[in-house]
Amino acid sequence: MLTIPLDGRAASPLYEQIYQYIRREIESGRLSAGKKLPSKRALSAHLKVSQSTVETAYGQLAAEGYLLARPRSGYYVQRLEAPPPVLRTESSPLPEASAAQTPPFDFSTSGVDTGRFPFSVWAKLTREILCEDARGLLQSVHPQGDPALRREIARYLRDYRGILASPDQIVVGAGSEYLLGLTVQLLGRAKGYAVENPGYPKTRRILEGNGAAVAPIGMDENGLRVDRLRRSGAEVVHVTPSHHFPLGTVMPVSRRAELLRWALEEEGRYILEDDYDSEFRFSGRPIPALQGLDPAGRVIYFNTFAKTLAPSLRIGYMVLPAPLLAVYRRDFLFYSSTVPSFEQHVLRRFLQEGYFERHLRRMRNQYKARRDILLAEFSRRDPGRKLQIQGADTGLHLLVRVCRKEEDELVSAAEANGVRVYGLSAYYQEGAAPKGKGGVVLGYAGLPPEKIGEAVFRLAAAWEL
Amino acid sequence: MLTIPLDGRAASPLYEQIYQYIRREIESGRLSAGKKLPSKRALSAHLKVSQSTVETAYGQLAAEGYLLARPRSGYYVQRLEAPPPVLRTESSPLPEASAAQTPPFDFSTSGVDTGRFPFSVWAKLTREILCEDARGLLQSVHPQGDPALRREIARYLRDYRGILASPDQIVVGAGSEYLLGLTVQLLGRAKGYAVENPGYPKTRRILEGNGAAVAPIGMDENGLRVDRLRRSGAEVVHVTPSHHFPLGTVMPVSRRAELLRWALEEEGRYILEDDYDSEFRFSGRPIPALQGLDPAGRVIYFNTFAKTLAPSLRIGYMVLPAPLLAVYRRDFLFYSSTVPSFEQHVLRRFLQEGYFERHLRRMRNQYKARRDILLAEFSRRDPGRKLQIQGADTGLHLLVRVCRKEEDELVSAAEANGVRVYGLSAYYQEGAAPKGKGGVVLGYAGLPPEKIGEAVFRLAAAWEL
Repeated sequence: MLTIPLDGRAASPLYEQIYQYIRREIESGRLSAGKKLPSKRALSAHLKVSQSTVETAYGQLAAEGYLLARPRSGYYVQRLEAPPPVLRTESSPLPEASAAQTPPFDFSTSGVDTGRFPFSVWAKLTREILCEDARGLLQSVHPQGDPALRREIARYLRDYRGILASPDQIVVGAGSEYLLGLTVQLLGRAKGYAVENPGYPKTRRILEGNGAAVAPIGMDENGLRVDRLRRSGAEVVHVTPSHHFPLGTVMPVSRRAELLRWALEEEGRYILEDDYDSEFRFSGRPIPALQGLDPAGRVIYFNTFAKTLAPSLRIGYMVLPAPLLAVYRRDFLFYSSTVPSFEQHVLRRFLQEGYFERHLRRMRNQYKARRDILLAEFSRRDPGRKLQIQGADTGLHLLVRVCRKEEDELVSAAEANGVRVYGLSAYYQEGAAPKGKGGVVLGYAGLPPEKIGEAVFRLAAAWEL
Repeated sequence: MLTIPLDGRAASPLYEQIYQYIRREIESGRLSAGKKLPSKRALSAHLKVSQSTVETAYGQLAAEGYLLARPRSGYYVQRLEAPPPVLRTESSPLPEASAAQTPPFDFSTSGVDTGRFPFSVWAKLTREILCEDARGLLQSVHPQGDPALRREIARYLRDYRGILASPDQIVVGAGSEYLLGLTVQLLGRAKGYAVENPGYPKTRRILEGNGAAVAPIGMDENGLRVDRLRRSGAEVVHVTPSHHFPLGTVMPVSRRAELLRWALEEEGRYILEDDYDSEFRFSGRPIPALQGLDPAGRVIYFNTFAKTLAPSLRIGYMVLPAPLLAVYRRDFLFYSSTVPSFEQHVLRRFLQEGYFERHLRRMRNQYKARRDILLAEFSRRDPGRKLQIQGADTGLHLLVRVCRKEEDELVSAAEANGVRVYGLSAYYQEGAAPKGKGGVVLGYAGLPPEKIGEAVFRLAAAWEL
C-alpha cells in the first residue's frame, strides 16, 4: 500500500498531492511498469481521504499517460520511455529591442503626427458600437473583411483615387506587410519579383521572407526603368508610382503606360501598386492610381490606414483584379480575417460619417504647412543656393542634396548638431547610392512645426550653407 | 490659342475643366508632342479666369506627365507612349462568399459561445483605456506585441500551462494562422514539415501556402506516430498534444518524451505545439504543455484567444525558444505588430485584473455542462449501446462512431433530420478515413444547452439507435 504524506493545510489540494507523489514514484522507477495500483476504495481508506479524491488523482495520472486504466480491473503503471536528458537552462532573457537614443530633432520617415488624430470622435464611435452591436462584434468576420467596411473603402477609392473596384475585390488585412506576403502566396513564389532600387527595404525583405527571388530595378527621373525590368525577366513588380519612396518621384503618365504595356506583353505579369501616401499631395488633385489605367486586371493595388490615421491601427487593404479574385476565392478564403471586427466596425463608421475625409483634409493642410515651413526655412538659411530639394510636391518626405557634400558627411554633421537625417544609401540594394547620387531623406510628418525652424538652423550650420 | 468651354456652374472647378480639356487634347493627339502651350498669363486672359486657375491646371498636367515645364520658357506637350489598349470591362462582381444554408442544429467545431463573453467588462475596460492613454494608443507597438501584455501572457502560461517563458520569448500576432506562416519564414521552407493525419486541414494549407513541403503522419491511440515521423525525413512537426483535433486523443507522457527525443536526435528539428483548446479540460488539472518538458529549446508553443474569448478578436501568440528568438530578433523585428495596440491594451487589462481567469472558469463550467448533457442524452437515447464516444474529457468536440454504420450514412441521415455533423474523413489527407475508422466529429461549443436534447433525439432517430 502507498503511504503518501498528505498535508491538509497545504496550498495544493489533496488529490494534487497524491498525483504528485505517484508521478514522482513512477518517474524515479520506484513504481515500475506493469505494477497494479491499490484500488480507489483501498487507497482512500488507507489515506483517510474520500474515494473521489483518489479517483481525481488516478484520472489525472491516466490522462497524462502515467497510469493505464483497465476496465473492471484497475490502474496499472505505464512503461515510460526514458525522458529526454534535462538540459533546461533558464531561458536567457534578451533585452527588449530598445529604441536607439533619439536626438532632439528627428526627420524619420516613419513618424506620423498622431497628435491631431480625432481621438474623441474615435472614442465616441467606439462607445456607440459597444452599445449597439455587442453580439455581432464577437462573431468571425468575412475573411476579406467586414462587407460594410469594404463598401466604404470602395467608395473612397472611387471618389478619391479614380479606382473602380467592387467591394468584392477588396481584401482587408492586418497591414500592407501581411497582405504583401499573402500576395506572394496568391501569385506563387516561383515567379521572379522586382522592386524599385532605391526603394523601401522592407518590401524586398518581405518578398524574400516569403520565398520569392527579388531583382532590384534601377530608376530614372520618371521612376522605375521598364527597359531594365524587361531585361530582368521578372514577372511581378512592386512600385510606388504616386510618390516614390525615397526619391519622391511621381511616375508620369507615359511611364505608367509603358509599365502597363510591359504587364500586358505576357500572361502572368503583375504590377503591385503601393499607394502608401498618395493622400498627401499638396498641389492640385491627387494623381490617379495606376490601377485606374489598367484595362486588363494586372494591377494589385495596396494601401493602408497607418499613415493616414495611426500606425497602431493595423488596417491595410488590397484590391484584387477579377481573375486573381477568382483564385483567391477558390484557394484563400480559408484564412481568417486578420483584423479584429471591432476595429473594422469603428473604421467603417469613421469612413461612413465623413470623419475620414475631414481628417485627411486637416492633415493635408497640417503637413503642407510643415512642408512649407521646411522649404521656407531652407530657402532662408541657404543664401548660396547650395541645396537641391526633390520630391516636395507630395507626401511626407523630401530628398535633399548639398553641393560638394557627400551623404555620409551630411548625416554625421547633422547628427553631431542634434538632428537625425537619413542617408539615401540605406535604400539602395547595394548599400550605397551611386557616386554623386547620395543625399538625405527628410521625413517631416513626425516633426512639430515649431521645431522645424530650429532643426533647419542646425542643419544649415552643420552643412555650412 | 485654346478655346476651352468653361462652365462656372458645373460641379467641377474651373481648373479641373481646363485640366480635363487639355488632357483629352493631348491623349487624342490633337495637341501633339513638343507643342508649346500658351503662357499662363495669355490663357487666363483669353479664358477670363485667374492666372492661378490656369497655373493649377498646368501644374497638375505637368505632375501627371502630360506637360513638361521648362523654367523661364513655358509648358510643352510631352510625348505620350501609346496607352495600352482599353479593354476595361466592369469588374464582374462575384457574389459574397455566402454561408451555406444552416440546418436547425449544427455541431460545427468552429462554433464558440460568445453569448457569455463578458461584454460589459470588455466595454468598461475599453472606455477606461480610451480615457487614460489616448496618445500611447496611437503609436506603433513593439513588433512582438505590447510588453505589458506579454508579461501577462507569460504569467498565465506559468500558472496554468506549466510553461516557463520570459515575456521576451512571446510574439503576439493576428491569429495562429499568421504566426504559423511567420514560423515557416523563421525555420525556413527548405525543411520538411509534418502534420498529424487526420488533422486540422488549415494547418497543412497554411504550411503549403507558405511554400513548405508537408508530409502527413499517421496516428495511433497515443497520438502522432513518432516512428513514422522519423521515417518521413521531416524536420519540423506540428502537433496538438493536449487534445488532438479531431480524434480527441491526449498524448500521454511517454509519447511526449518520445517526440522530444526525436527532436533532440538531430540539429534543426522542431516541434510546433498547438495548444488550441487546452483551457477546456473538464476533469482534473490541465495536462502540462509539451513545451514545459522540453529541455533544449526545440518546441515552439502556439495558442490563441479565439476559442477562449471570441473568434473576432484576432489575437494569438507563440513562445519562441531562446535560440530561435535570437534569429527572430536579428531578421524579423522589421515586421510591424499585426494586432492593433487598442486590442492589446484592453486584453492586457482583461488578463491583469483577473477577468480572463474568471471567464475561463465560467466557460469551462458552461462547456462541461453541455458536454455532460450531450453524453447523458446519448446514453439515454442509446439503449442498445451502439455508440462509441471518444475524446470527451477535454475541450469542445468529441468523436462519435456507431456500430455497423458508415460515416457517410451517419452524416447524411443526420442532415436529413436537420442536424449537421462533420465526417472524420474530411480531416484525412487522403480525403477518407481508413476502412472502419470513420466517424463524426461533434463540436458542441456553439450549440446552446437547451437545444442539445432535441439534437440528440434527432440523431438517435436518424442513426436508428
